[in-house]
Amino acid sequence: MEQLTIVKVGGKIVEEEDSLKVLLKDFSAIKGYKVLVHGGGRSATRMAERLGIESKMVDGRRITDAETLKIVTMVYGGLVNKNIVAGLQSLGLNAIGLTGADLNMILSDKRPVKTIDYGFVGDVKQVNAELPVELIRSGVVPVLAPLTHDGKGNILNTNADTIAGEAAKAFARHFDVRLIYCFEKKGVLSEESDDNSVIPEITPQIFEQYVSLGMINGGMIPKLENAFEAINAGVKEVMITHASEIHTGRGTKIIG
Amino acid sequence: MEQLTIVKVGGKIVEEEDSLKVLLKDFSAIKGYKVLVHGGGRSATRMAERLGIESKMVDGRRITDAETLKIVTMVYGGLVNKNIVAGLQSLGLNAIGLTGADLNMILSDKRPVKTIDYGFVGDVKQVNAELPVELIRSGVVPVLAPLTHDGKGNILNTNADTIAGEAAKAFARHFDVRLIYCFEKKGVLSEESDDNSVIPEITPQIFEQYVSLGMINGGMIPKLENAFEAINAGVKEVMITHASEIHTGRGTKIIG
Repeated sequence: MEQLTIVKVGGKIVEEEDSLKVLLKDFSAIKGYKVLVHGGGRSATRMAERLGIESKMVDGRRITDAETLKIVTMVYGGLVNKNIVAGLQSLGLNAIGLTGADLNMILSDKRPVKTIDYGFVGDVKQVNAELPVELIRSGVVPVLAPLTHDGKGNILNTNADTIAGEAAKAFARHFDVRLIYCFEKKGVLSEESDDNSVIPEITPQIFEQYVSLGMINGGMIPKLENAFEAINAGVKEVMITHASEIHTGRGTKIIG
Repeated sequence: MEQLTIVKVGGKIVEEEDSLKVLLKDFSAIKGYKVLVHGGGRSATRMAERLGIESKMVDGRRITDAETLKIVTMVYGGLVNKNIVAGLQSLGLNAIGLTGADLNMILSDKRPVKTIDYGFVGDVKQVNAELPVELIRSGVVPVLAPLTHDGKGNILNTNADTIAGEAAKAFARHFDVRLIYCFEKKGVLSEESDDNSVIPEITPQIFEQYVSLGMINGGMIPKLENAFEAINAGVKEVMITHASEIHTGRGTKIIG
């Protein structure tokens, strides 16, 4: 099968013009088929502030009430996504921005209320990759925003790491998929304060051990859970690394 | 050639939940291939107000400074577009939202400053319809937002009537195109205060005459100019009508 590289980029990188430019250039230099998945949480928080709407987070996840849903739909689906698409076009990549509603690509269920009401947050139910696969084979580069839909007319907010993992799993039926989660650190760190303490490989055993020791915590836990799920569902390779290392192969490798 | 219906809808219709629902249902009932083009100016103005940014208009056209560009990118490309896409998906149409940057569909030039500096407004230079045509033939329904790009990484604001006209011209090389501009009136009125004074047919001669008499004025002039341009470039039929009449064939017919 042909290779497809999926790069998930979040945090400050996509939200500051200079770092975004560098990232898009590095991304455009990746050979072969590729997909970019982006976040945009900081921009959403800033926009909410400007509109006088409080951002409520629980364990790094945004509580998405009706007003917040409008903000993330605007910011993720509009501002961040379209600027990335225009940026990639300027580098000669024929990009297309997609939310889960576009081409019915990612259907989700509104998360049921248990102890916490996350509001308009979607848990992925189904990924329809056929038309995106055709586009990719035509040379198109999908740019996925962290939004899904419920099939009943509602957009739902979905974590970008989850989008990347679920897309990787669905594309793995059509391509040899390499999934790269990139962010501001050089990989998963064994000591948070030491940028050079990158764990080169993480197996499920190491993961459990490090979580129980508190060395892996916060948003890194769901990110790694997504990564293991992807590996176990046929994705060939999952890396967690710094945005500037998407070419080098350096970083933390996830072993299934 | 197969028929393609392009419906351009603007004004309040797309921005109020109830009227949007009715419009999407009527639109989804149109047989055969179809494309929806939307505006969103009122939502952009409201969002600008909430953010404390003044909306400056000249002859019904928005002056688009850097802050306003962010707002229209969010509102047109995100909020309005994605809600329409999700709404159409719920009606069983496999919709996809596209700005001119997506698939490099519509390239534009930043409007040169003459007497007025419109800011980040794009005049359409080139429409690349090949991939959208393939999507349409696969049963996909493009939903076009009034945004284009300059190929240098910048999104530009472009009038939705113009987008509809330019898309119609490009699609006319692949389909028999019927273009319907719909809004809150039953057609072009000979007396603004009389909703029933619909002019059934407008030729270039009638247009010139009515403009010189002041009977056709304001935003209707560029709308009709787009309509004539489309007809002269091979679009089979152009209608201007009420949103509820997109099935009936009633309204104002443009004769080339």
